[in-house]
Amino acid sequence: MKLETTAGQLHSALKMVSGLVERVAVSPVLTSIKIEDGRLTATNLDMAASVTLPTIGKVEGTATVDYFALSALAKHTAHDERIALAEDSGLATASFNGSEYQMPSYPVSDFPDFGAVEGEATRSDNAGLIHALRRVRFAMSTEETRYYLNGVAFLLDRNEAPMLCATNGHRLALMPLPAAPDGSIGSIVPRHTVNFLARQKGEPSTVVFDQERRRSRFDLPGMTVSAKLIDGTFPDVNRVIPQDAVRLFSVDRAALMRTLRRLCAFSRSHGILRSVKLTGTPDGLTLSTSADGRRASERMSFVSPPEKPFECGYNADYLVDALAALNGETVAFASVDDIANSPTIISAEDDPLLIVQMPMRV
Amino acid sequence: MKLETTAGQLHSALKMVSGLVERVAVSPVLTSIKIEDGRLTATNLDMAASVTLPTIGKVEGTATVDYFALSALAKHTAHDERIALAEDSGLATASFNGSEYQMPSYPVSDFPDFGAVEGEATRSDNAGLIHALRRVRFAMSTEETRYYLNGVAFLLDRNEAPMLCATNGHRLALMPLPAAPDGSIGSIVPRHTVNFLARQKGEPSTVVFDQERRRSRFDLPGMTVSAKLIDGTFPDVNRVIPQDAVRLFSVDRAALMRTLRRLCAFSRSHGILRSVKLTGTPDGLTLSTSADGRRASERMSFVSPPEKPFECGYNADYLVDALAALNGETVAFASVDDIANSPTIISAEDDPLLIVQMPMRV
Repeated sequence: MKLETTAGQLHSALKMVSGLVERVAVSPVLTSIKIEDGRLTATNLDMAASVTLPTIGKVEGTATVDYFALSALAKHTAHDERIALAEDSGLATASFNGSEYQMPSYPVSDFPDFGAVEGEATRSDNAGLIHALRRVRFAMSTEETRYYLNGVAFLLDRNEAPMLCATNGHRLALMPLPAAPDGSIGSIVPRHTVNFLARQKGEPSTVVFDQERRRSRFDLPGMTVSAKLIDGTFPDVNRVIPQDAVRLFSVDRAALMRTLRRLCAFSRSHGILRSVKLTGTPDGLTLSTSADGRRASERMSFVSPPEKPFECGYNADYLVDALAALNGETVAFASVDDIANSPTIISAEDDPLLIVQMPMRV
Repeated sequence: MKLETTAGQLHSALKMVSGLVERVAVSPVLTSIKIEDGRLTATNLDMAASVTLPTIGKVEGTATVDYFALSALAKHTAHDERIALAEDSGLATASFNGSEYQMPSYPVSDFPDFGAVEGEATRSDNAGLIHALRRVRFAMSTEETRYYLNGVAFLLDRNEAPMLCATNGHRLALMPLPAAPDGSIGSIVPRHTVNFLARQKGEPSTVVFDQERRRSRFDLPGMTVSAKLIDGTFPDVNRVIPQDAVRLFSVDRAALMRTLRRLCAFSRSHGILRSVKLTGTPDGLTLSTSADGRRASERMSFVSPPEKPFECGYNADYLVDALAALNGETVAFASVDDIANSPTIISAEDDPLLIVQMPMRV
């Protein structure tokens, strides 16, 4: 294999797939990147990404070269420096300006072929898919027993309108979509792929969902991402989301977040904090925590106060996450029944994101 | 104890002693701070720092309050918020604006008394003590067997001129001082104290060295630092520093550092790199590394080339440290004898810092 490019081009292309190649892999070939036809391909068996590498002149042959060595080199070299890459019998060489770097390469035939994801491609420029993934992903589960929660699902709401949903069983985030790509409803995009896509700039021009083979494809600017879908069924979230929830009170989002962060920082200065208790009267809201001999309580005022006193508790981190995920000045807390024992809907005016938070006994 | 201050004042005062109070200590009282006469005192038994805390109105009594809880609170509160601090029977309370934070406090009598460091105080405004500590500290040892190298020593050079010196046995850094404080020659300031002082702004107005009781005091703006000195004898560095070393070559400091960093990043992308080899001819300098199947070599030009070819090796990290520690465009490498087997003096024009680097067999 022989090609010439600049350090800047190489660095940008390799950076696009960073996070995908694993440092410690079952086979050393998985720590490498395939160079073929002016494209770089990286895979971790669950997904593959292929990016264009602009070159100077013609590219000869193919090769798989150590990803991390090549990345370190490209990162530490002046952007306009011309780098010549060559590969021959298990050794790749990068040369520029009198310098020579040798690193391992592997047989191209050993590089796993993820396979092309074919199927009905849906134009998705304006669907805001990645934007929506970014907004709900905080609620994904990271626990392996309910593996089908380790991702974001394409679902329909009660009115058959498409939405993205993530949940870990204790909280749930919902974001409506203007349109669902063909065949996407019921798909669960795995966490690693969600986080990889969320890091990319721009939205995919087209997407493919192949439910039969549980595969998906995202055609991003300069990069194609192919990924497995989770082989599982997402729970029926429409049954979980409280219908006809009544707004109980609303508060200033930034003020509540600031107060919660102070309570968390204080309580965790020497121990563990799990829950925060909210006590409300028409006069104001009291937040209190207690952990390892450190007690704290804060008072703040409502934007719109509750009609009658209430008391409830939440996981402190989840509440901060929810407030940070929402946009807008004011957040409203709503529930169907007694707020201390039923799921709370947390939302902000003019923000389509909806968060359902389970209470905690405090 | 009762006092009133602002969150901003409290935060600044607590921040000055950060890094001194240990999170995990033999006794919980060591995770606290003593409040007395408008001053905060922190100690880790090896050193103590006392800072002024500006208060609003009169301070009543004394108390020792959990450092980390108080710091977390002050950090997360608006700077101009007035905080009232009170302590009563094992519980300290901070209140402001309807909020109340309770944290543990300990009997004042349990707080270790580091004791005042008395003795001849030397004015040191213009001695550049802390500046010099900052410049040599990179060479301190972190290894416990030769405990007397875990710090910076006040020494005299062959011409009886005072200097600061740090070494770990493989490299040595020397910085001349305009004047030595009374009783300082022979003192070794421990690593923790050096690093604490290096973080502070400004130079001490006066310093005290009490060799008999192995103690020192640094009177900084708004803070007094008292510290033990290492009970040991520093090696005779004047015997180690090559006399009449001849300059062999000089190179561009930034270019060499950039090249070394690239070599290190590349070689460490998948393994360990210890040494770098330098091969010089009057035509140019070649740097080469080899680690875990990754070989690399770089060519660069000399600012002033050597008269005859040479070959030598250094610890790659130490060489980067040395180049980063020096100021100036060009660095010179000098040695008395064969550079591959004798200590190398690395220095830069117009920079008083002198680095002696032991070679490595490559």
